[in-house]
Amino acid sequence: MVLGARPPWGALAAAVVSEPALDSLIDALRRLPGIGEKSARRMALHLLQHDRSGAQRLAMALQAAVANVRHCARCHTFTESEICGICADARRDARLLCVVETPADQAAMERTGSYDGFYFVLMGRLSPLDGIGVHDIGLQALLDRAGEPEVEEVIVATNFTAEGEATAHAVSEALKARGRHVTRLSRGVPVGSELEYVDLGTIAHALVDRR
Amino acid sequence: MVLGARPPWGALAAAVVSEPALDSLIDALRRLPGIGEKSARRMALHLLQHDRSGAQRLAMALQAAVANVRHCARCHTFTESEICGICADARRDARLLCVVETPADQAAMERTGSYDGFYFVLMGRLSPLDGIGVHDIGLQALLDRAGEPEVEEVIVATNFTAEGEATAHAVSEALKARGRHVTRLSRGVPVGSELEYVDLGTIAHALVDRR
Repeated sequence: MVLGARPPWGALAAAVVSEPALDSLIDALRRLPGIGEKSARRMALHLLQHDRSGAQRLAMALQAAVANVRHCARCHTFTESEICGICADARRDARLLCVVETPADQAAMERTGSYDGFYFVLMGRLSPLDGIGVHDIGLQALLDRAGEPEVEEVIVATNFTAEGEATAHAVSEALKARGRHVTRLSRGVPVGSELEYVDLGTIAHALVDRR
Repeated sequence: MVLGARPPWGALAAAVVSEPALDSLIDALRRLPGIGEKSARRMALHLLQHDRSGAQRLAMALQAAVANVRHCARCHTFTESEICGICADARRDARLLCVVETPADQAAMERTGSYDGFYFVLMGRLSPLDGIGVHDIGLQALLDRAGEPEVEEVIVATNFTAEGEATAHAVSEALKARGRHVTRLSRGVPVGSELEYVDLGTIAHALVDRR
């Protein structure tokens, strides 16, 4: 093989193909959650090689979303109006208020088709290590909303993770201190599962919360 | 529980929170390779909630890349100039031409620090099932480039996958038919591995290609 006498990992390799526009795109894609260097590079090359119209569409969608999407004045979820579609729906049951962490959790609740009350979306969860406290999840706004006279029950539906449980605890205590009736989604064995394969903590909770 | 009498999966769930700007963003993100519905939603919510400056930066990076990144006139890799940095580098060994599938493969070759010739980047591989034939990988341009008088050896470094091997075969045959000296990266046992754990096909190839 006719190979150069340069040392491995030499200056040549470092001086390689640095294209500012491509590198900026890879850097910007890396800021997406769950995307590392290799995925970002693969996405950038894919867009430039096979889907330039998709790249332009994504650029415009990003700008439109940043310009138009804001928080619902009542429930804090994302909306393009002053009040989101659910909060504006007079057919829903105003006696129920369900507290969830994110719009994705809200969407999961909606997909069950078993709930027709209103929501309050915390847009996060308590996470002291990340510096996210009660102010960041809009606790005062929730207390104001839950204090409206037609609300009879606040259902706390934060996730059943450590942070979600801590958030549920803080939210529930604050609501109870103001005399609100607070419930929590039940913990238990998932539908369709066999006890043998369910983790012990879940079985223990299902036993404690037995009906 | 005070729950509505609506049927599960009813009309209410279907009528839920459809926000056009948010939905467009999720759709656009889903077109990225390897990104499904849930990841796209998570990315969109993350950008809008925690990183609007990142969203704007990504939008601008996409537009700049689409506007400025094109193919090098000599090697077909991505560049913002007429000729890419490697092709423009007079210190490199003009006797060697290495054929790779993608800019990522080219970057891997460069990182070894063991090669200082030029490249030809196919920007793809033969894939009849996807309708990608010899025209799409720029075979004629490669033949022209390899036909330049200073080129003494063409090293085919396509991937060692089924499609990469088929591409190597087609490229090699076309080059040999024009009297070019063609070599292929050697197949063999990866550095640092124990024979016991190497797959049989690799060992068989290492045996055939023994030095």
